[in-house]
Amino acid sequence: MGSVKVFGPAMSTAVSRVMACLLEKEMPFQLLPIHLPKAQHKSPDFLKLQPFGQVPAFQDGDGTTLFESRAICRYICDQFAGQGNRSLLGPEGGGAADRARVDQWVEAEAHSFNPPSSALVFQLVFAPSMRLKQDPAAIRENEAKLRKVLGVYERRLAESRFLAGNEFSLADLATDKAELLTSRKNVARWWEDISARPSWKKVLDMRGAPPA
Amino acid sequence: MGSVKVFGPAMSTAVSRVMACLLEKEMPFQLLPIHLPKAQHKSPDFLKLQPFGQVPAFQDGDGTTLFESRAICRYICDQFAGQGNRSLLGPEGGGAADRARVDQWVEAEAHSFNPPSSALVFQLVFAPSMRLKQDPAAIRENEAKLRKVLGVYERRLAESRFLAGNEFSLADLATDKAELLTSRKNVARWWEDISARPSWKKVLDMRGAPPA
Repeated sequence: MGSVKVFGPAMSTAVSRVMACLLEKEMPFQLLPIHLPKAQHKSPDFLKLQPFGQVPAFQDGDGTTLFESRAICRYICDQFAGQGNRSLLGPEGGGAADRARVDQWVEAEAHSFNPPSSALVFQLVFAPSMRLKQDPAAIRENEAKLRKVLGVYERRLAESRFLAGNEFSLADLATDKAELLTSRKNVARWWEDISARPSWKKVLDMRGAPPA
Repeated sequence: MGSVKVFGPAMSTAVSRVMACLLEKEMPFQLLPIHLPKAQHKSPDFLKLQPFGQVPAFQDGDGTTLFESRAICRYICDQFAGQGNRSLLGPEGGGAADRARVDQWVEAEAHSFNPPSSALVFQLVFAPSMRLKQDPAAIRENEAKLRKVLGVYERRLAESRFLAGNEFSLADLATDKAELLTSRKNVARWWEDISARPSWKKVLDMRGAPPA
């Protein structure tokens, strides 16, 4: 049985999501960097792993390959159910409804939180660093969308410690948008909680010095 | 035990996805129409079911409520595992990798196929019917994106009958974008296959005459 492999640059949010999940599950893995500026994600070999040419791709020790970070995370939780953090898909011994309560917040992150927050990070962080022109209308539009989403998060996080309940779950994994999150009381408290986890600190370390 | 309830207009793709899933599982349900032009999805009662004010919301017979259509569909498959179509989350008796193979194509639909196809349906179908101005740049950009995605689907569907394998699964549910899909041989064959299913025909019937 080979080792678990994650293909992609640690800097990618989606790659970080999978890394954080593996670290929560205490599952050793190899990170195989994919160089996006050199278009390694569009190479024929990589397209066999990920037909859309996106990161990450994943290979299990038995050769199973998968793509799409949230599908990979659910797989890791199912496949390595007995080790590490056992409540990422809901409280241990819980039923379909517990799993679904996590899943609905994973989906909310994917469809409500992530689109405006990614657009804002692009406009506010990447565009200046790449000397691209910022788009004020896009900034305004996405700020308004994100404000609504954070309002929902704030009310939810006044009821429970984490998004899906009082346990850290897949729904809280990898939200690396610090600068957007600290103006609301409960969101700020949640952000401090989730970014203080050893798994996430390790992800940030690996971003600084990815293994060769 | 009450009946299963789906809240939302049948015309919504996300509502149709949940209806088609329930029909595949042979699970009777009530469709409770939510009138979007009257902003019923922003009413305090609806926001208790769906804090983002989006459709659908879902209530199980035991009172469990959920939101996010793909999370609801996974829940329906888990909760009613023993009835109706038993291979929506992968072949019966399969393992975590089989489920993940379905899940990666559900995610690909959500993140790669759906954004450009929804944008195009808005520009090409809704904008004219609402007398809104079409955006030629948005049309070009989303056509190019969709063309790439359909290229991946075409290659995949040359290898297997459905997206996740040779069985119809959650990944094939509710792709109601006919006009965008018929120019590629295998995509067209797949589209005919999935839109001929009794569950989907029933969804289209219900769209025509939603129950009161």
